[in-house]
Formats: sequence, structure tokens, C-alpha cells
Amino acid sequence: MNKSMKFSRLLVTLLVGFSLLFAGSLATKAEAAPKYNWKLAMTWPTNFPIFGDAVQKMANLVKEMSNGEMEIRIDSKNKHKAPFGVLDMVKAGQYEMGHSASYYWKGKDVSLMFFTTMPFGMTAPEQYAWFYYGGGMELMGKAYDRHKVYSFPGGNTGNQMGGWFRKEIKSEADLKGLKMRIPGFAGEVLSKLGVVVTNIPAGELYTALDRGNIDALEWVGPSLDLNMGFHKIAPYYYTGWHEPATELQFLVNQKKFDALPANLRAIMTTAMELAAYDMYSRSMNDSAVNWDLIQKDYPDIKIRTFPKEIIAKLKVENNKLLDEKAANNAMFKEILDSQRSYMKKVRAWTKISDFAYLKDNISE
Amino acid sequence: MNKSMKFSRLLVTLLVGFSLLFAGSLATKAEAAPKYNWKLAMTWPTNFPIFGDAVQKMANLVKEMSNGEMEIRIDSKNKHKAPFGVLDMVKAGQYEMGHSASYYWKGKDVSLMFFTTMPFGMTAPEQYAWFYYGGGMELMGKAYDRHKVYSFPGGNTGNQMGGWFRKEIKSEADLKGLKMRIPGFAGEVLSKLGVVVTNIPAGELYTALDRGNIDALEWVGPSLDLNMGFHKIAPYYYTGWHEPATELQFLVNQKKFDALPANLRAIMTTAMELAAYDMYSRSMNDSAVNWDLIQKDYPDIKIRTFPKEIIAKLKVENNKLLDEKAANNAMFKEILDSQRSYMKKVRAWTKISDFAYLKDNISE
Repeated sequence: MNKSMKFSRLLVTLLVGFSLLFAGSLATKAEAAPKYNWKLAMTWPTNFPIFGDAVQKMANLVKEMSNGEMEIRIDSKNKHKAPFGVLDMVKAGQYEMGHSASYYWKGKDVSLMFFTTMPFGMTAPEQYAWFYYGGGMELMGKAYDRHKVYSFPGGNTGNQMGGWFRKEIKSEADLKGLKMRIPGFAGEVLSKLGVVVTNIPAGELYTALDRGNIDALEWVGPSLDLNMGFHKIAPYYYTGWHEPATELQFLVNQKKFDALPANLRAIMTTAMELAAYDMYSRSMNDSAVNWDLIQKDYPDIKIRTFPKEIIAKLKVENNKLLDEKAANNAMFKEILDSQRSYMKKVRAWTKISDFAYLKDNISE
Repeated sequence: MNKSMKFSRLLVTLLVGFSLLFAGSLATKAEAAPKYNWKLAMTWPTNFPIFGDAVQKMANLVKEMSNGEMEIRIDSKNKHKAPFGVLDMVKAGQYEMGHSASYYWKGKDVSLMFFTTMPFGMTAPEQYAWFYYGGGMELMGKAYDRHKVYSFPGGNTGNQMGGWFRKEIKSEADLKGLKMRIPGFAGEVLSKLGVVVTNIPAGELYTALDRGNIDALEWVGPSLDLNMGFHKIAPYYYTGWHEPATELQFLVNQKKFDALPANLRAIMTTAMELAAYDMYSRSMNDSAVNWDLIQKDYPDIKIRTFPKEIIAKLKVENNKLLDEKAANNAMFKEILDSQRSYMKKVRAWTKISDFAYLKDNISE
């Protein structure tokens, strides 16, 4: 081997080394902007307004803020076929994320129902204060930790209406044997007053009410009720008592979330929290606009509030059921106590602020 | 030159080429993470709770979500010495951003007062619905465009209390000659009922009220009033009519904002919007907690609402003043009309939702 051969060999070695370094540097650059492709399963059907839009808003924000580093594909129930399997799918890591409502897991873990809304519970602004400044997020984290998922507020419908009734409810006697679609814990409470609670798929509700197979039903409020058309067949629209602040939820698989870099965790958390608040404003707007439309097109729709003795009885049964469940469930009791004591304080404030103000600014 | 020499020269050329490429690649990498160092001027003093915390939250979110690419330094009024010069400083580009309240620019451009809150106007959830879904953001953009700044909601205090009074107000006669600190448009309205409106710096308010130099004052609500100590010297705490949903504002210099890359614009917008909603929840919580403390320590504090005839008169004077200003100001009229027509719809919804619900769940 002559000198120039040796020099050539050295150069080749250096060249290979540099090439590897260069390739490595390109790889590092690529790693600095990897794609996180996540999938989200939602309980709702394709193109479901407001709920689905909140999920889309969250996904858009994540994509824009991460400069395309992270994208979230949204699967509706039409795709994954398991609207009430969202918690299990996120827990198993089959989906990194879900969007649903916490009270759907009542049968699996009764403590989880507190994080949606409660009969005679807090209004949306009161409940957001509880979540973010009154210990609610910590309790939700604790309750969901057993399921290895993180849970975040996922959008509020605002105060839900008490439902559409074919006949007026004048006394407790009118509730006895009344067939009503009202799901969840509120149904349990109503059944204590003799209501026959049934569950009917959304697509069959209109026909069931129209044919008298049911006498009443509860859905959401004007924001989503208008499209369902119930106002065409049931003239009594009752004000709400059972879902004063229905909050949906984002679920995130703990391991997948913890593995994200810090900036993407911040982006995700912020996007979810904002999408939730934003859905509350959207619901407020759509309810206002749709209620206005319903009143114009159907001026005979009658707004009613349940008689005082029914409300009083519902409160008693509600508290009795809650205390029963709390008696042998420490987690349930901890959340119940937190909500009750917080609500006492925050309602005292609402009384002298928004409520006092509205009393002077709403004509009876 | 022999073959191996030629080969060596080729290798050297390649090596130099690769080295340059490698160096270039490193430079590109560094450019991909530039620092945007912005400055924000706020109207508030250093360590001002809730308001200042909302600004800090926004800045923290921007830093975390941008992975340190963008940082915002916050200057309080103690530093920049111009609490009411924030709009001008942002307009001039002296500061990229500001945090203040839109009604402070009433003297400069009267149309801007609508974006904070209005006497007998919308509640916070109603107003957020107007901003984001009822055309409010578009109108705010239009009104601020003349000032070459973008304006964004910057945090809500919730319903503000009507103020601390040393004596009870039983009729309109009790308002004649009453010396009260109440700034802005609400002061204009009250002065029509004979109130002598004065403005006194925050630091001198307690002494002025204690010595009887003023008979009453309006500040915020329990969230911020507790620290001021007014409850120790004025036993009547009146419910509010004048600021049902005080929204602060972020101001951003248009040129500076437009020059940001798309992902940072998305991060900024999201961080500001979330910090605003979050301040509303924080205010709700702090008012609830502080009102509870005031009641415990000062059980003699009396909550009062102004007599119906005073409220009615204030409404008349309020509308008269607004209509006067609208008569020769097209921008003012456009915003006034939008708020009035939106409020009619959204209040009809509030009446059958939150208000109906609260009536059944608040003991008189």
C-alpha cells in the first residue's frame, strides 16, 4: 500500500464517517418533527352537531398548534360500533383517546357519574369553578386512575330541559305510571315517584312519542331538540332539574399521554380545555337561536316547571339515593361531600350575583 | 497526477462538500427553533391577583406549547408607568401586547366600551356566546381595526357587585347628592339620578370611605373586595346592575401578530382564549370562597338590591344615553343593535334554563 493509497483510505473512512453523521443529523431533524398519529373514538354518530364539532375543534387546534407534528383521527360510533365501549377501548390502548360522557360508566363504576352533572347540582359556571379551582379535577383524576385513563372536561350542553310531555303534569298523581324516556341516575330518581322509565334508541324516539308508546321524553335542550322535531308532537316543554350542567369528557390513555413530549402534552391539555369551554358557548348560542325559532314556528308550545311539591319530593329521593350509595363506597362519598360543600358556597355567591341580577332583568 | 491522486482529490472535494452540507444542516436546525421574545404591558400593578394571574397563565401556556420558541415578558404598571396608555403603546409597537379593559378607551373611542360589559347587559355565559357565536368577535375586530390592534377577550370577573354603601338606599331621594366612586359609563348613568360621581385612586379608597369623604364605592366583588377591607366600614353590600360580566382584554399589535408563523398564531389565540375562560372560573371560585369568609367574619353585612323604582329609572337613563350616543355614531349603533337583539334571544333562553332552575334551588 503506497502513501497515496493510505491517504485515500483515510479519506474514504472520513467520508463514510461524515456521511453517517450527516444521515444521523437528518434523522435527528426528522425525529424533531415526528408525526404522532392518534385515534379518538367518540360515542356520537358521524356529523353529530355540537358534540362532534367540539371534538373536531380540539383535533384542529392540536394539529395547528403542533405545526402538524400531531394529528388525531376521529372515529364515530358508525365506524367503531361501540358507543358505550369508549372507556374500555381507551383503557386497552385500542384508541389513544375517547370522547363520551362520564355518567355512561355508572354501571361500571358508580363514582364516575359525578363528573357529568347531577340532579339539583351545580350550573355550568359553578361546576367549572369546582373542576378547576374547587378540587374537582383532582377527584376526577383519582376516580379515573383505577381505569388507567386521564379524564378531562369535554364540553358543556348548559342546563338541559326537563323534557317534552304530551300532557301537563299538575300533581304527583300525574307521574304515576307515566312512561318516560330518561336515562341514567335521573331516571332512578324519577322512578321513585312512580314514573315508568324506559330507554329507547335515539332514532326511534320521535315515533314512540308520536304513537303514545311513551308519554314523555328528555333529550337535551333547544340546541339539539329542534332537529328531533319533538315540539311538533308534544306541547309541554318542562324546565330542567336533573342535568343543570351536562359536561362531556375527553378520555386519554395514561401510558400514551405520558409518552408524549412536554410541549405536546401542554398542547393537548389546552386544546381539550378550550374545546370544552367553547362547546358551552356554542350550546348557549344554539339553544338561544333554536328556542327563538321554535317559539316563532310553534307559538303554542307551553313552558312549564314541575309543581313545587314534585320538585321537593325529587330532592328528597335524590338525596336518599345518593346517601345510600355513599354508605358503602368511600370514593363515592368523597366526591359527593366535595360537591355538596362546594355547591353550598358557590350557590350563596350565585344567589347575590347572577340570580339577583336576573331577577331584576327577567319579566315573569 | 496519478490515478490514486485524482481519487484522493475527488474524495477531498466530496468531503468538503459533505462538511458544508452538514454545517448547513445544523444551521437549518437552529433556525427551526428561533426565539420570539415579546413584551406585554398590563394596566394592573405587580402581583395583582386574578387579573395578573390570567396574564401569567397565558404567557406560561405560550412558552410550554411552543416548546420555548416564544416567550412573553410581562410589565406591570409599576414598570411602564402608563396604566391607561396600554392601547397607545401596543398600537405604536412599543409593546407587542397589552392586557387591560376595553371600557378604559371610552374617551378615545366610545364604541370600544361595549366589549367589556354594559349596564343591564349580558351575563358572562351569554356574552361569551355573543363574542364567539353571535358576531361579537367580528364587531370587536372591526372596531379595533382603526387602532391597528387585534383585541381578544382577556378574562371575566363575573357579575360585579353594586358596591359598598354606608347607608341603606331606600328610595331615589337617598341617591341625591350621594358621593360615590363608580367609574365609566355606569357612573354617567348614576349621575342622572343625582349621584355625585368621583374617581379616587385605588390606594386611597378605604380611607375616603372610612372618613366619609365618599358615601359609597363600587369595586369588583368578593373575589377582589375582601383584600380591600371595605366590609369593615360599610355594612350594606348592594347587588349589581352595572357590570354583569366584566371582560378584560388582550391587545396585540396587528403587524407583529401577522408576522408570526401560523403555529404560533394558533398557540397565541388559543392561550388567550383559554386564559380568559379560566379567569371566569377562577373569579367564580374566589368570589364564592371570599363571600363565605366575609359572612363568617362579618355576619352583620347586609345584602341589598336597589328598590325597583331605582332600577327602572336606571334602565330608562341607560337606554336614553345609549340611544343618544348611537344617533351620530354608526359603529356605536351597529354594536348596540347587535347586543340588544342578541340579548333578547339569549335572555329568553336563560329565563327557561338557568333562571328557572335557580328559582327552584335558591331559598329566598
